Amino acid sequence: MTNFEKIAKEIEKLDTSKMFQGDFLQTWEKDDDEIAATLKVADALRDLRERNISTKVFDSGLAVSIFRDNSTRTRFSFSSACNMLGLEIQDLDESKSQIAHGETVRETATMISFMADVIGIRDDMYIGKGDAYMREVIAAVKESHEDGILEQRPNLVDLQDDIDHPTQALADLNHIIHQYGGVENLKGKKIVMSWAYSPSYGKPLSVAQGIIGLMTRYGMDVVLAHPEGYEVMPEIEKIAKENAGKSGGSYSKTNDMKEAFKDADVIYCKSWAPFKAMEERTELYGNGDFKGIDRLEQELLKQNANHKDWACTEEMMKLTKDGKALYMHPLPADITGVSADEGEVDASVFDRYRNQLYKQASFKPYVIAAMIFLSKFKDPAKVLKELEARGTERRYTEK
Amino acid sequence: MTNFEKIAKEIEKLDTSKMFQGDFLQTWEKDDDEIAATLKVADALRDLRERNISTKVFDSGLAVSIFRDNSTRTRFSFSSACNMLGLEIQDLDESKSQIAHGETVRETATMISFMADVIGIRDDMYIGKGDAYMREVIAAVKESHEDGILEQRPNLVDLQDDIDHPTQALADLNHIIHQYGGVENLKGKKIVMSWAYSPSYGKPLSVAQGIIGLMTRYGMDVVLAHPEGYEVMPEIEKIAKENAGKSGGSYSKTNDMKEAFKDADVIYCKSWAPFKAMEERTELYGNGDFKGIDRLEQELLKQNANHKDWACTEEMMKLTKDGKALYMHPLPADITGVSADEGEVDASVFDRYRNQLYKQASFKPYVIAAMIFLSKFKDPAKVLKELEARGTERRYTEK
Amino acid sequence: MTNFEKIAKEIEKLDTSKMFQGDFLQTWEKDDDEIAATLKVADALRDLRERNISTKVFDSGLAVSIFRDNSTRTRFSFSSACNMLGLEIQDLDESKSQIAHGETVRETATMISFMADVIGIRDDMYIGKGDAYMREVIAAVKESHEDGILEQRPNLVDLQDDIDHPTQALADLNHIIHQYGGVENLKGKKIVMSWAYSPSYGKPLSVAQGIIGLMTRYGMDVVLAHPEGYEVMPEIEKIAKENAGKSGGSYSKTNDMKEAFKDADVIYCKSWAPFKAMEERTELYGNGDFKGIDRLEQELLKQNANHKDWACTEEMMKLTKDGKALYMHPLPADITGVSADEGEVDASVFDRYRNQLYKQASFKPYVIAAMIFLSKFKDPAKVLKELEARGTERRYTEK
Repeated sequence: MTNFEKIAKEIEKLDTSKMFQGDFLQTWEKDDDEIAATLKVADALRDLRERNISTKVFDSGLAVSIFRDNSTRTRFSFSSACNMLGLEIQDLDESKSQIAHGETVRETATMISFMADVIGIRDDMYIGKGDAYMREVIAAVKESHEDGILEQRPNLVDLQDDIDHPTQALADLNHIIHQYGGVENLKGKKIVMSWAYSPSYGKPLSVAQGIIGLMTRYGMDVVLAHPEGYEVMPEIEKIAKENAGKSGGSYSKTNDMKEAFKDADVIYCKSWAPFKAMEERTELYGNGDFKGIDRLEQELLKQNANHKDWACTEEMMKLTKDGKALYMHPLPADITGVSADEGEVDASVFDRYRNQLYKQASFKPYVIAAMIFLSKFKDPAKVLKELEARGTERRYTEK
Repeated sequence: MTNFEKIAKEIEKLDTSKMFQGDFLQTWEKDDDEIAATLKVADALRDLRERNISTKVFDSGLAVSIFRDNSTRTRFSFSSACNMLGLEIQDLDESKSQIAHGETVRETATMISFMADVIGIRDDMYIGKGDAYMREVIAAVKESHEDGILEQRPNLVDLQDDIDHPTQALADLNHIIHQYGGVENLKGKKIVMSWAYSPSYGKPLSVAQGIIGLMTRYGMDVVLAHPEGYEVMPEIEKIAKENAGKSGGSYSKTNDMKEAFKDADVIYCKSWAPFKAMEERTELYGNGDFKGIDRLEQELLKQNANHKDWACTEEMMKLTKDGKALYMHPLPADITGVSADEGEVDASVFDRYRNQLYKQASFKPYVIAAMIFLSKFKDPAKVLKELEARGTERRYTEK
Repeated sequence: MTNFEKIAKEIEKLDTSKMFQGDFLQTWEKDDDEIAATLKVADALRDLRERNISTKVFDSGLAVSIFRDNSTRTRFSFSSACNMLGLEIQDLDESKSQIAHGETVRETATMISFMADVIGIRDDMYIGKGDAYMREVIAAVKESHEDGILEQRPNLVDLQDDIDHPTQALADLNHIIHQYGGVENLKGKKIVMSWAYSPSYGKPLSVAQGIIGLMTRYGMDVVLAHPEGYEVMPEIEKIAKENAGKSGGSYSKTNDMKEAFKDADVIYCKSWAPFKAMEERTELYGNGDFKGIDRLEQELLKQNANHKDWACTEEMMKLTKDGKALYMHPLPADITGVSADEGEVDASVFDRYRNQLYKQASFKPYVIAAMIFLSKFKDPAKVLKELEARGTERRYTEK
């Protein structure tokens, strides 16, 4: 049995019926079968592509991207995913568009969707906004589809919201699974999601939350570590605890970085802004209080500077299991002496893990493609096998 | 006979020979067969797409878009149309390009057209400019094609100029036809193109002019209503009168909104700037007199504010035929209490017609695709039937 | 034998093995077979396209463009080339991306390349930067490919660097070859690369250097003409001399425009900034000395203004062979009385050669497509013949 046949067989056993014509927002809204199917379909699509077999399932059609925050990695991952399925990207650049002040989300969403099969959105800047906006878009296109206005119903892929970063967390999970040779091998492994110092301000909480919200499902010992004052959203901690309970793992929290790193198998170490401060910023923004935002920024930078010792140094890495924990980061990292005077990680640590970090990133396009694929096909294993049988070349080869 | 066969049969009867290798600018340059063919081909393409049959007629090729004004709806409509025919959008963003000061239109048009099959242009900001620019582009690519420089001749689609908005007007007409179950049922219907108050300034005249220039061809009683001082271009009124004469309908004008609304079957109600003011603005712009433009803006906003009673209110709608006229708008609308304190339309009126407004908008991508299609094929009905017979799936379906 | 068969036969004789999985930077890095193959493949692709035969060799895949300078012609040429081979453009707009301060080129290059088959870069603004950046990108994607991070290795096309403009120079060469009916007819022809006055500042040297670095390979008498102080890079002059020695032509330099024009067969006449000044600008830029840059700009404009007599006037053209030399320019030109008060060329000269100038430009998309094609196929002639045999229509034609 080939690797591809094995993957297809595993997908057959999973119930993905609720993903058909659905959307992908937070990972905790998906059950275990759905998460597993997303990773397996990602692996199957990658396997096909690596064998030069086309995965194009659309002859034409648009994929609309809406980026309300800068992005390189996720933008290219989304483009890649859509392109490999046959969809053409049409970016909604809100600065160039004629969106009326006060125009409803329903209207904009409908107007861009007459021939859209997919909508990808990044909206992670303001607490309480990004996720809410995405749900409005989904409600809009669903309603317009049901009302017969939209011939097809575009499915939404959450490219990072204010709470979760599902395409990142799932790419990360797939990377860990591939590192350990199977999801069953994650049981009992210790993974640390640690805050780290960065000279910048206002980094989203969604990566940290995504990690504790997802990794707790696989029997791992998940530790959240951060200085006092850098708490994440309590709702997500609640989810992490419940997950850990069900999966036979654990979820704990500490303000002691060293304790966290001790004997860890996996270190995920990055900066984020305190949830409370992000809430305050959202309120200030809502009130148009830009002076207040500037003041808050100064306060936060000062607060960050009190915790410069929170960095993934060589010394810290020595505390991990055999000094060899898997180091992870969503990139770009603030590397001490490279991209920042003092940053999240020592240059030598980063360099040693560079290839693994890039491999970690390489899972994202396929995860996004899988999310789209599962929203379009009731029987994904069947379609994957048909694509293999069709055997269209992605890249022409001499006959 | 299927709906598709019926449409194809109707297209066969129409003479579209002059559209082959032609361009689509103002609707009044097209004869009745050509207008009818555009709508029928749009319907046929939509029918194919709704049955998941690919309408791709290009294996590769570019569609160049030039937007000299903001746009969401038309931009996505153009992208959708080109994508469904197999062309990839390449936007000419004049701010990022290296267009020399004084570079001739002939040169730019040729340089972007070596592999362009279509050029779509929105240029609606200055009276006397947009239409003229498009004709220069057409002349340029025609000449370069005749001189053997361009292998293929890109055909131009006017995505709104300073005089007409043909893709809008034709989408609107198709909406009305579908509402009334056939073009023959428009005879004797009263349609009002009414000005409405908006707190913004300088909205193009081209929608209003497009409506009176097109709807007068179908035996309707077309009424243009606006406050004194909001006159449209006299040349277009002349066209409207002539059309009405030939079609057995009528064209009239009033400064009394209530009189206009009385017993109307269709209400098209939107703001525009007075033609004379737009001419003055163009002149000020030409002279680089930006202070003058600011002054003019203040004057016009003040003038607008004298006519806040020109709004499509519930009360006004009651005056229409059975209080149930079809309400139309090109969107986005200035909705009172939603997108403006006081605007073009009551929120309750807008809400009641929301689905119909969205359906109205849904015709535009297909109208644009039809314009392109007719510029590329001598025998459009034959090609449409061949596409149906070819039966390529647009979206893969399980076998 | 058809024209296509003839071209294919000629390609068969050329050794292109080192181009497979390679990159295209400066022309002088390529041997004669490689240059010849690039032009022949360009001709073959054009022949296929003109016979409506699809040259799509990718079913899906991305082509990443990075423009660090404005561009219209090259941007559209790159888009066209990628589109005709089946690749979708994904632009890396550095202003919208989340490239961290100090992020390594290796990281960015890898992150955008997971599904990229081609990367096209324009980076021509600073001496010592553009070429160096491109080589860093190449090293990065090669390493990431070898490390198993990138499934495929994107090949780089240099869309103008600080030293050479290879796609321009090769398009220009192909234009001359087609004008003279074969590369063998270039022997003994006199071609002048002349500086010309322009009221603008800081134009790249790369076109002038590209021309003397390439045209000296074909037995032509190549003359570089410029006022004192407008020297090009000595390394490139050295290459030009060596080329001329090998090819049986000559390379000479003069500060006398009239002497240069005398009996010339081909006149290439455009402005550039002195190499030394460009070096100074790079240093000022490196130091963030923007006042210094402003000062330098004023100096250079003043220096330029001393040489307003360096223009391709009717009088100057009379000095050329029979007064009928082929006039060339990469466009856009500064045309006296049209795009500048005083510029590089008389309007009447420009007008007389307009069609030829546009034809010159028309070679660029095919040259770029050929560069990509040769980086992807070991046996390009075989693939070209297979594409002809496959006979897929580019544009649907009635059956």
